[in-house]
Amino acid sequence: MPEAKVHRIATTGPDDVSGIASAIASGAISPDGIVAILGKTEGNGCVNDFTRAFSVHMLKAELSRHLPHTALDEIAYVMSGGTEGALSPHILVLERTAGQEIGDEQSLAIGRALTPALPPKDLGRLAQVEMVAAGVRAAIRDAGIDALSDVHFVQIKCPLLTSDRIQRAETEGHSTATRDTLKSMGLSRAASALGVAVALGELQLSDIDDTQIGRDMSLWSSRASTSAGVELENHEIVVLGMSRQWSGPLAVDHAVMADAIDVAPVKAALDRLNLGRDDASLVALLAKAEPGTSGRLRDSRHTMLDDSDISATRHARAFVGGVLAGLVGTTEIFVSGGAEHQGPDGGGPVAIIARRNGG
Amino acid sequence: MPEAKVHRIATTGPDDVSGIASAIASGAISPDGIVAILGKTEGNGCVNDFTRAFSVHMLKAELSRHLPHTALDEIAYVMSGGTEGALSPHILVLERTAGQEIGDEQSLAIGRALTPALPPKDLGRLAQVEMVAAGVRAAIRDAGIDALSDVHFVQIKCPLLTSDRIQRAETEGHSTATRDTLKSMGLSRAASALGVAVALGELQLSDIDDTQIGRDMSLWSSRASTSAGVELENHEIVVLGMSRQWSGPLAVDHAVMADAIDVAPVKAALDRLNLGRDDASLVALLAKAEPGTSGRLRDSRHTMLDDSDISATRHARAFVGGVLAGLVGTTEIFVSGGAEHQGPDGGGPVAIIARRNGG
Amino acid sequence: MPEAKVHRIATTGPDDVSGIASAIASGAISPDGIVAILGKTEGNGCVNDFTRAFSVHMLKAELSRHLPHTALDEIAYVMSGGTEGALSPHILVLERTAGQEIGDEQSLAIGRALTPALPPKDLGRLAQVEMVAAGVRAAIRDAGIDALSDVHFVQIKCPLLTSDRIQRAETEGHSTATRDTLKSMGLSRAASALGVAVALGELQLSDIDDTQIGRDMSLWSSRASTSAGVELENHEIVVLGMSRQWSGPLAVDHAVMADAIDVAPVKAALDRLNLGRDDASLVALLAKAEPGTSGRLRDSRHTMLDDSDISATRHARAFVGGVLAGLVGTTEIFVSGGAEHQGPDGGGPVAIIARRNGG
Amino acid sequence: MPEAKVHRIATTGPDDVSGIASAIASGAISPDGIVAILGKTEGNGCVNDFTRAFSVHMLKAELSRHLPHTALDEIAYVMSGGTEGALSPHILVLERTAGQEIGDEQSLAIGRALTPALPPKDLGRLAQVEMVAAGVRAAIRDAGIDALSDVHFVQIKCPLLTSDRIQRAETEGHSTATRDTLKSMGLSRAASALGVAVALGELQLSDIDDTQIGRDMSLWSSRASTSAGVELENHEIVVLGMSRQWSGPLAVDHAVMADAIDVAPVKAALDRLNLGRDDASLVALLAKAEPGTSGRLRDSRHTMLDDSDISATRHARAFVGGVLAGLVGTTEIFVSGGAEHQGPDGGGPVAIIARRNGG
Repeated sequence: MPEAKVHRIATTGPDDVSGIASAIASGAISPDGIVAILGKTEGNGCVNDFTRAFSVHMLKAELSRHLPHTALDEIAYVMSGGTEGALSPHILVLERTAGQEIGDEQSLAIGRALTPALPPKDLGRLAQVEMVAAGVRAAIRDAGIDALSDVHFVQIKCPLLTSDRIQRAETEGHSTATRDTLKSMGLSRAASALGVAVALGELQLSDIDDTQIGRDMSLWSSRASTSAGVELENHEIVVLGMSRQWSGPLAVDHAVMADAIDVAPVKAALDRLNLGRDDASLVALLAKAEPGTSGRLRDSRHTMLDDSDISATRHARAFVGGVLAGLVGTTEIFVSGGAEHQGPDGGGPVAIIARRNGG
Repeated sequence: MPEAKVHRIATTGPDDVSGIASAIASGAISPDGIVAILGKTEGNGCVNDFTRAFSVHMLKAELSRHLPHTALDEIAYVMSGGTEGALSPHILVLERTAGQEIGDEQSLAIGRALTPALPPKDLGRLAQVEMVAAGVRAAIRDAGIDALSDVHFVQIKCPLLTSDRIQRAETEGHSTATRDTLKSMGLSRAASALGVAVALGELQLSDIDDTQIGRDMSLWSSRASTSAGVELENHEIVVLGMSRQWSGPLAVDHAVMADAIDVAPVKAALDRLNLGRDDASLVALLAKAEPGTSGRLRDSRHTMLDDSDISATRHARAFVGGVLAGLVGTTEIFVSGGAEHQGPDGGGPVAIIARRNGG
Repeated sequence: MPEAKVHRIATTGPDDVSGIASAIASGAISPDGIVAILGKTEGNGCVNDFTRAFSVHMLKAELSRHLPHTALDEIAYVMSGGTEGALSPHILVLERTAGQEIGDEQSLAIGRALTPALPPKDLGRLAQVEMVAAGVRAAIRDAGIDALSDVHFVQIKCPLLTSDRIQRAETEGHSTATRDTLKSMGLSRAASALGVAVALGELQLSDIDDTQIGRDMSLWSSRASTSAGVELENHEIVVLGMSRQWSGPLAVDHAVMADAIDVAPVKAALDRLNLGRDDASLVALLAKAEPGTSGRLRDSRHTMLDDSDISATRHARAFVGGVLAGLVGTTEIFVSGGAEHQGPDGGGPVAIIARRNGG
Repeated sequence: MPEAKVHRIATTGPDDVSGIASAIASGAISPDGIVAILGKTEGNGCVNDFTRAFSVHMLKAELSRHLPHTALDEIAYVMSGGTEGALSPHILVLERTAGQEIGDEQSLAIGRALTPALPPKDLGRLAQVEMVAAGVRAAIRDAGIDALSDVHFVQIKCPLLTSDRIQRAETEGHSTATRDTLKSMGLSRAASALGVAVALGELQLSDIDDTQIGRDMSLWSSRASTSAGVELENHEIVVLGMSRQWSGPLAVDHAVMADAIDVAPVKAALDRLNLGRDDASLVALLAKAEPGTSGRLRDSRHTMLDDSDISATRHARAFVGGVLAGLVGTTEIFVSGGAEHQGPDGGGPVAIIARRNGG
């Protein structure tokens, strides 16, 4: 019976791999079990954020001392720039190990899947939604999760359009959803999030048309977290959920915040995991934060969307970081931005991983 | 028996005085009872923040339609720039009215005092601490507050050094605590906060020496909020507390956060005021936020002090704004920065004003 | 014979009107001759820049001591936020006086015109181009300028769409060019600049269609400078040129920079005005700066468009400010952004006003 | 007879080493001749700029394919963050080759030297000035430069204080010049620049005392460029000058700008190198930019020092970048900040390398 491990490791900079190196040296982490590494890095989380690439480069260089090149590239590296407010830079290493105990209870399960390469003409369109939905279903099967309600977090790395890829599509006589490479990142995240919603039965494929992708924020998944990366042409999918086929003390649950200060659902999820009591401790919190499109939060105007000095996404991460850190008592939480169709407009999904001490 | 009123009014910009104008027109606010106006404005809260002066200018222009020039200048205008995260721009109008009910219970009391002009040579030194302590005592008497433990918030506007004032001191053969006008703002805020601590019995004057002012962050007041303004040479002091000599449904209490995510003391104060239950509602929350000097929050590193793109004070307001808005369910809260000796290093005082519905 | 005067006055902040007040007190400026006031203020020049409104408010308050309310509103106030790099905050007061000398030479001429109110449905469309072209022609006539080649600078303040105006248009059964109020500012500036081009014979109205406005950057005027303001529904037009019907020592000329470092045309214009020699001195330089859309300058990549920390317009003003200040030896120059159809993509028009000492 | 080569290579990001890789592959650059690599990277050039380390890391990784580890570390890597305005990211590879021609003329000469490790107690003090002066003299000898007036650019990488190094000094019973690690960077740059001044005879060691280092901006070198790096404990010194012992078409000269718009000395140096004429072309321009301490440029106030949104050093690089790019017609120039004692307050040194086509 496999066991999922989640290692939360503080970093002193985007190039700091000393923590993962020590964990490997001590045997706490076995490199060949690593499925994904998520990280919060110091950059601005926007266009000119080089801390993400720097971090991935250094992690790969470190892991290359233990793994063959092909294995290196099978790991999903999901770096999120922006540690605004008191958010603390760290990485989360997701590992699949041979578990030692056998039981009847559900435990944290990790599944993964890769989709085929996405033709550039399909990016940001229904065909991408459909491809991702199929991939998520495969990852759920890989995780051995029986019920869709046991899926709590779906992380997707998706491709984007580059000038080359646009040209390739056009040479073949196709148009692309956009010719703006930056916008293609949002469209790809959007279509991927809707793919999660379809796989989880939150939406039907027939409910969606191309024009809603990236635009109609009333469509969303409660468990999607998507990010676009220039280095891949397909989708890397990691699913976290609960399964009886896995062992170990870890458990995961999730909540959806309706807006940036909607703490009740998060408190309820913390309660369900027994956090705040002696018999459980927090391992990781992963949340999406966004300023929303209305310029208001409940009855009150905010100024995030009108600030030409600080990006709205940076404001949102700092603020939602405060809301959530106040609830869980640590600032080492993974709050990321860019939340198209990932939770409701102005709100967002929150996944929580806990260690059950009595496990 | 007087009654204290606190009007919280949303603004659409630093120059928006339509809300206070309407309240005066409808009789909800009587201009001659206004003691102080506190405001959160859209600027960066740092050196080149012109929204504070713009707001004060527009408020005075509006009030000049109702009050003689001398009365205008007796009002304390405390503008705090920086509505980071989802913090919402608004003003708080503190008014002293003739109350209509007489009772035995304590109610919100407002007192004020002005000190003599501060000689520039005394700024940032013990003589300023002593002058402020005397002024705070006078304001407490003015408020009719019997016990120091009934004082919950002391707002002070203090002077700063300008090139002219430094020259004046030097011409008279004196040195000043600094020749850097920006630093003088911090020193003046620091000495004023220590003056509050002395008046409230939190510290003894003999415990402090000049070299600790603005430096030794182990010295602090739990109820001070100070800001420096170029337009005055003395101190304007406003005290909020509880007194049997005042009537009305408002009450005030306070808490001290030990760090930016220390929510337990705030929750306790909200509880003491019955907030979160049917019989009370939030009128205002006033808090100080600071990144602290250690670069860490509990066990975790943060990056606020190393960010050359966004001022640490802006990060701190956004983050602490999230922490507190998550607790009270509104973003119309007064979170300000510049917290030398105002609460512990990295933490800060929080004052809460509630309306007792059964009152 | 009228004489045009241009007063360049340094300011110590957006609210500093002491310079213009002194000039009025000394008789150097006669308030009733003021046609326009242009100003560089400290803000970011983007959405949340309150220094422009603060400056206009303070100027009007000062001038209201000398002028009736109706006269106040006839003056065009053109505030440009952003004194990046070493650019120096200042105002330029354009005044029309009764000149004292009569001669045969051309001198600086100022003309102005107001258009009728622009129906919101016409904003950003050909109808606005046509309305502005008519207004510019009227202003040229008002200035007594005979030849279009004697027009060197056309400043236009144009309206923008607000939610109210969009609703008004839609209630009447019309669509608007955009429903995004921020985008409407760019479209209005764009259509106004094309209106100048049509009036000056640089383009034919029949050469332009609606879809090119704000998009086809190959269309541009060499002498337009436009800015949008929420406070007006029509266009305020100020034309500067040379005319034999005006007297006095001032002269104006212009150049077009093909890119941000294209100094040769500016040097040629400075030469034509005899600047850099004993017999002339610089009074004012007005330029438009923009990052351009290509991401490159000549052969080299720049990073302005990818910087999520600093707006591209701020980079461009700082850089072009350096290019031009290096040429003229002062940093008190009026470099503004937002240059749709105002000069070629990545370049911009430059107007120079000189005093002929021998004049 | 050796020949100095300078390769200017555009980069598409801090991690782009494709240009240098191609040049090595084609034989244009011989890795074992590389003395130093200077680079402009996209970061903010301030504390949280990770682009410099990312670039150095990638350059070393690339060069490690051609050079042994020890040779890698002998190269001086001088990365300067901040491509504000239209400044263009690029690297300059300085190479010492076996020259093919022999002549009587002076040519560009490169010399280098390493000092011993600097004891932390000496950093920012006269002992550092003296150590650097000795090192510069050694580098001049290494370059075969006869006269001090033939030295035109001295680049120094100097150490800084870390918490560890401070503790080491204190354990040994010594104090350090500062306990603030950020300030130690400025002090080390300052002492190094003064060391250059002493070596070049611009100042006498006896003219300087400890209290002036980093403070008295009337002391400066016309040819120093210094930067601090955490990775070294000694000084890496690279000298550029003219010598008859070197061959080849390259020549170097320098100028000192008295303020940010002081273009005359730069024009004179360009003239001396015959730039702007057919028989010479620009290879590289290296300049230091700083906002100065007065808040004014000539007669005019600037706002760089009061801007809490954008660092003054970023403003200065953008602006001076414009001034210099306007002169030389390219934006691929090396404008860096942090100019303590490197040129006069508010001004800075400029070094220019030209290729003599008729050479």
